[in-house]
Amino acid sequence: MKPQILFARLTLLMLAGSLAGSAQTPARLSDFIRPFVGTKGEGNTYPGPAAPFGMVQLSPDTDRELWDTASGYEYSDTSIMGFSLSHLSGTGIPDLGDFLFMPQVGEPKLVAGPKDHPEAGYRAPFSHDQEQASTGYYKVKLLDRNVTAELTAGERAGMMRFTFPETDKACIMTDLQHFLNGAKFKLIWSHVRVEDSSTVTGFHLINGWGKERYLYYAARYSRPFDSHKIMSDGKEVVYDSFKNYRFRSRNEAAGTNLQFLAEYKTHADEAITVKMAVSAISAANALKNLDAEIPTWDFDGLREQTRAKWDKEMGRIQLVEGTPEQKETFYTAMYHCFQAPNLYQDVTGEYRGLDSNIHNAEGFQNHAVFSLWDTYRATHPLFTLIQADKDADMINSMLAHYDQSADHLLPVWSLQGNETWCMVGYHSVPVIVDAYLKGVKGFDKERAYEAIKTTAMNPDHDGVATYDKLGWVPFDQENESVSKTLEYAFDDYCVAQMAKSLGKNDDYAHFMKRAASYKNLYDPTTGLMRGKNSKGEWRTPFDPHLFEQGGDITEGTSWQYTWYVPQDVPGLISLMGGKEKFSAKLDELFTFGANASQGLDDIQGRIGEYWHGNEPAHHVIYLYCYAGQPWKAQEKLRHVLKTQYGNKPDSLTGNDDCGQMSAWYIFTSLGFYPVCPGSDYYVIGSPAVKHAVMRLSNGKELTIKSENFADENVYIQSVLVNEKPWNSVFLPHREIADGGSIVFTMGPQPNKSWGTASTLIDNSTKP
Amino acid sequence: MKPQILFARLTLLMLAGSLAGSAQTPARLSDFIRPFVGTKGEGNTYPGPAAPFGMVQLSPDTDRELWDTASGYEYSDTSIMGFSLSHLSGTGIPDLGDFLFMPQVGEPKLVAGPKDHPEAGYRAPFSHDQEQASTGYYKVKLLDRNVTAELTAGERAGMMRFTFPETDKACIMTDLQHFLNGAKFKLIWSHVRVEDSSTVTGFHLINGWGKERYLYYAARYSRPFDSHKIMSDGKEVVYDSFKNYRFRSRNEAAGTNLQFLAEYKTHADEAITVKMAVSAISAANALKNLDAEIPTWDFDGLREQTRAKWDKEMGRIQLVEGTPEQKETFYTAMYHCFQAPNLYQDVTGEYRGLDSNIHNAEGFQNHAVFSLWDTYRATHPLFTLIQADKDADMINSMLAHYDQSADHLLPVWSLQGNETWCMVGYHSVPVIVDAYLKGVKGFDKERAYEAIKTTAMNPDHDGVATYDKLGWVPFDQENESVSKTLEYAFDDYCVAQMAKSLGKNDDYAHFMKRAASYKNLYDPTTGLMRGKNSKGEWRTPFDPHLFEQGGDITEGTSWQYTWYVPQDVPGLISLMGGKEKFSAKLDELFTFGANASQGLDDIQGRIGEYWHGNEPAHHVIYLYCYAGQPWKAQEKLRHVLKTQYGNKPDSLTGNDDCGQMSAWYIFTSLGFYPVCPGSDYYVIGSPAVKHAVMRLSNGKELTIKSENFADENVYIQSVLVNEKPWNSVFLPHREIADGGSIVFTMGPQPNKSWGTASTLIDNSTKP
Repeated sequence: MKPQILFARLTLLMLAGSLAGSAQTPARLSDFIRPFVGTKGEGNTYPGPAAPFGMVQLSPDTDRELWDTASGYEYSDTSIMGFSLSHLSGTGIPDLGDFLFMPQVGEPKLVAGPKDHPEAGYRAPFSHDQEQASTGYYKVKLLDRNVTAELTAGERAGMMRFTFPETDKACIMTDLQHFLNGAKFKLIWSHVRVEDSSTVTGFHLINGWGKERYLYYAARYSRPFDSHKIMSDGKEVVYDSFKNYRFRSRNEAAGTNLQFLAEYKTHADEAITVKMAVSAISAANALKNLDAEIPTWDFDGLREQTRAKWDKEMGRIQLVEGTPEQKETFYTAMYHCFQAPNLYQDVTGEYRGLDSNIHNAEGFQNHAVFSLWDTYRATHPLFTLIQADKDADMINSMLAHYDQSADHLLPVWSLQGNETWCMVGYHSVPVIVDAYLKGVKGFDKERAYEAIKTTAMNPDHDGVATYDKLGWVPFDQENESVSKTLEYAFDDYCVAQMAKSLGKNDDYAHFMKRAASYKNLYDPTTGLMRGKNSKGEWRTPFDPHLFEQGGDITEGTSWQYTWYVPQDVPGLISLMGGKEKFSAKLDELFTFGANASQGLDDIQGRIGEYWHGNEPAHHVIYLYCYAGQPWKAQEKLRHVLKTQYGNKPDSLTGNDDCGQMSAWYIFTSLGFYPVCPGSDYYVIGSPAVKHAVMRLSNGKELTIKSENFADENVYIQSVLVNEKPWNSVFLPHREIADGGSIVFTMGPQPNKSWGTASTLIDNSTKP
Repeated sequence: MKPQILFARLTLLMLAGSLAGSAQTPARLSDFIRPFVGTKGEGNTYPGPAAPFGMVQLSPDTDRELWDTASGYEYSDTSIMGFSLSHLSGTGIPDLGDFLFMPQVGEPKLVAGPKDHPEAGYRAPFSHDQEQASTGYYKVKLLDRNVTAELTAGERAGMMRFTFPETDKACIMTDLQHFLNGAKFKLIWSHVRVEDSSTVTGFHLINGWGKERYLYYAARYSRPFDSHKIMSDGKEVVYDSFKNYRFRSRNEAAGTNLQFLAEYKTHADEAITVKMAVSAISAANALKNLDAEIPTWDFDGLREQTRAKWDKEMGRIQLVEGTPEQKETFYTAMYHCFQAPNLYQDVTGEYRGLDSNIHNAEGFQNHAVFSLWDTYRATHPLFTLIQADKDADMINSMLAHYDQSADHLLPVWSLQGNETWCMVGYHSVPVIVDAYLKGVKGFDKERAYEAIKTTAMNPDHDGVATYDKLGWVPFDQENESVSKTLEYAFDDYCVAQMAKSLGKNDDYAHFMKRAASYKNLYDPTTGLMRGKNSKGEWRTPFDPHLFEQGGDITEGTSWQYTWYVPQDVPGLISLMGGKEKFSAKLDELFTFGANASQGLDDIQGRIGEYWHGNEPAHHVIYLYCYAGQPWKAQEKLRHVLKTQYGNKPDSLTGNDDCGQMSAWYIFTSLGFYPVCPGSDYYVIGSPAVKHAVMRLSNGKELTIKSENFADENVYIQSVLVNEKPWNSVFLPHREIADGGSIVFTMGPQPNKSWGTASTLIDNSTKP
């Protein structure tokens, strides 16, 4: 579609949105975004501005040490340390938060100070009454110093505007040693350099979640400094001809505790604006990024540019009807889905690769931050549907990562030129296969397959070689052996699907055999997945509710992981003795008393031992649909949508994990979900929208309508797909790939004849 | 000259050299080079191979902690730690020594161990009997392990060949935390990466003499490893599924104490060769450098290539007649002159600039390591004469440094993308002005002048602003105030010369006024240079023999620095009351009892308070020539040449300082010296060669002959310049700029009428 046409459509859609809502409804989709959602409690999102998939995320930090404040901002905190340039959205582990800018009045302070005594440092008390966050914009009053801070952001560069009171002693401090997870991670080195009287560049190297993360920044100030200081370990960097035996420049310094102070005398309400950009390559590139993206001092113009970008992104799914609360929830979820993977290349096309070398992204835009254990489930399948070009960029980025990997592995959990090895499995595979099989173009399928197969056959990685030989990962050789076995088996199903499509029949057979490995860990005496050692002996004693870091299960219990066979639910049902027994067992999951002391703090949203706050749960409710009891899924899905999502800061019950919690919301709201990425079908749940239009990646539109829609009408009575009656819970991708319509008719009571006799026809042989 | 012609000439010259010497005399000029010269005691040179001005210098390190072992190798040591890739030639401060390679047999050791117990570490005893160093080649037997190590080097890459005994347990270790000055400097970070089964890359960041020096290496091994290990803090980097909660690659690691072990089972006399290269930019560039420079495994071929390069360089001055000892001394001095400034850019043209950014050297080859306080004196003037193209590269490198300087300063003492601020003055200025005025082409004169003037007017640097205002650097505001004043005044003379040439008359006047500032510190009551405070009061009490780090004088005494007025010796003579008094005072300098406890250990070559081992002495003997007593200079110069230079490891009496000690030898041997770089004249001393031919930068030849040449015939009887009788001690550059001849007639007694009435006609007004 040509941009003009797109714009016309957007305008129309916006009007539609506007007319459908209340009189107060905003006219622009981006105005429904509520950046505070997920900032209180477990969500680990941040409230500051960012462009879609942007490289910078300017946002206030209230904490840099607590594990639970992974985005740097916790809504319950009452003071702000300052504003840093980069943030992770919803991860379980804190990182980034690079380079803190903080305006000060009076004698500058060089440390943040504790939360209970913010006055001991540069920390400032704030109140949510005098704070706002909207798309591309954040504003807060720093109460103790009477300074208003405003932030906006483009792709690689952002702006901060600080409005000062009248004072002889104002300064804008940059703390180069600021980054998140300061208690655990280490700043290796930093330097700062005054380029001219209104330009500064700096650098730091962090040994954090990734083993070495290089980041440079450049900042231009709207007013030349009246004076400037570099502080190192609390002392001004200055040449003293007697103390310093040799000359020392006051315009640059290197070390591990550096602050830069831009000092001013200000009049009342004087605004000083700082433009800043980052680069992983050099200060010169950060300056190029800055000057290319923000050539003027137009703060409001940049904010509007970014809003317009979000309008366009939000337009990919048009929620034609809905309450303001629902629209806010929905578009905020979309917003969170489009936070990551992040752009990670300079305007020159250069980026720092996994091998630390400087590469040129040729034919794609390099992206980083792949939280794949989470996002392969629904976020990437959502991209497959509505962000195919971006998904191709991401896949090309993953292939570049593979090329650069000393271990010849696709990313596991990659973070800006680093592999964190976080979590288990090789879930790059389902991302690529799902995209490939659903027609995403723009990457080389043979090259992709070579990377996929090499990854799945790696002799060193996490017990894969033994798994290939034995058919399971033995617990006496490897921790999290049950989760690894189950996840490898799913990933292998995906490898097999691509092998089949490429005519690699031997590979297909090999990986389909591996895809059935889950059977090796199903213990018929307990009806659960259970660890097995290299001699083939079961884990004894066996506590199926045990949650143990480094045990047999990854962030969960055997009861939770037993359901992890997305590639062959019928096979699992059969192992369990049929649909009735399977459903009854599933019922049990939701009725166990949740043990509050079990698991991790940030996994909430607990219904029995179903913990929606973590990803292993995400496909589980949909399993009822395979077992002939879709109405149970319908009721539970709507319950979770209603009780575990919303438009409030505390509306997320677990880490958003770079959009996976949110992508679950989007799919589930629309009435279907990719239980098995890499297959050709979705599973129909229960729609929570009355009328929505998805603009698919190919430009076609998929309209979703719910007749007789009401909060209490959670049960599907009937379905039309492309105007044909549809009596299956399984929705093939090909049915909607070229757009069309899905019309649900809803009611307050289950229609126990709809969908109950569905037969899964997957495009592959069952494992 | 076309290469073929040059080659033909070289061959002829080599033959000439061969015929002139004894029957054992080598046929190639490069074979006269004795790399061990200066490795014992103060010289601080290294014995390993390097290409002319090369980026790598592969050499054994015997020490990494002692200040006095600045090149890593001290001839008196009896054990070798290993072989590292980069070395400084003759500096007073240890640095570089990056990445140590050491073959081992048996259980690998990870620390070097102490000198008195080498068996406690990987250190190996060696004997000079089983060690050799020649041009482009070094070989040593590691006695305890029966391994022979051989080294050769190209520009950015080198090779090591290790010949092992038969063993199941051989390894080649790379210690990434090795660098020189380990006791004082700090390794900030390092990483290593196994690229494939015979290729490794690595990196370290050093906070050393320069604040942050980045270096990458790449190594390819002639045989794939049987196995490999990365060691971090003494432990193998390996994935242990129970100890490591998440996967950990065994193919890469980052940290501060890393070793890489390439492990082999070897048969008797099995040679394993390693090719290695460096880059300041990336591992990828190091690999490019490696593969471009050393495409094959031909160790001997590379050695021969480098010998041929040195033959060419040595051919710039043809010592047609001379004893083997003299030729060895002479060509080794040439060799040391052509060690630095070093090439500092990759084959891609990229280099890391002073601003840490990656730059492309356009139109020049970037060089680093500028020991300017030393080398402006004679090394660069030698380059002006016979290495003009290289000098232009260096000047363009200095101008790039200026462009990249946060302080808008030309280099003071620059080290590979860093400014060390070592020593005083702004001696980039005489280097550039000397080259400019003597016709070196290839740099932009207006751009150069702008850099020169801005540097000389810097408001922050080392008291320059106060000096500009008062006419001296006051000792109550600045240490080394006397040396700074005197050196600034000389540098300012040079600024003025260039200003005059460019028609900038106001600048000329301003800087010529500053060039006379030395007069402000001449104390007529003592007849010496003496500190003055900002009120104009003399330093009291005043000890003219005081040597005090951080006192009024830089590495010297008032008695030594009083002679530092190269730009206006007649003016100094006049201040001192005329030539007789001046000469008598100069006589005194050579007769003081040297106080052994005074000064620095590495400043030797002491004759009274004349300390030839440090640069402030280097022009002093020549001052007799200005005062009508050239025969005193003649005798003393020949004495120093004979007693303080030679072909033995201990033949240097002070730090060679990147070739300055050696350049003094070259000029002085040839019979003239650039007492005042930036002027248009040399001062004639006493030639120590019978017949030499300089091939000037413009291809013309200058022939120097000494009639009646003999060891004892140190006195000039008469001189012909271009066949004209020459009765002046001053030799204008223009007389020899297009080649020609200087014919000295020597005798055992002074001819007190030759040269005694010389009048200095400088091309400038006197200051």
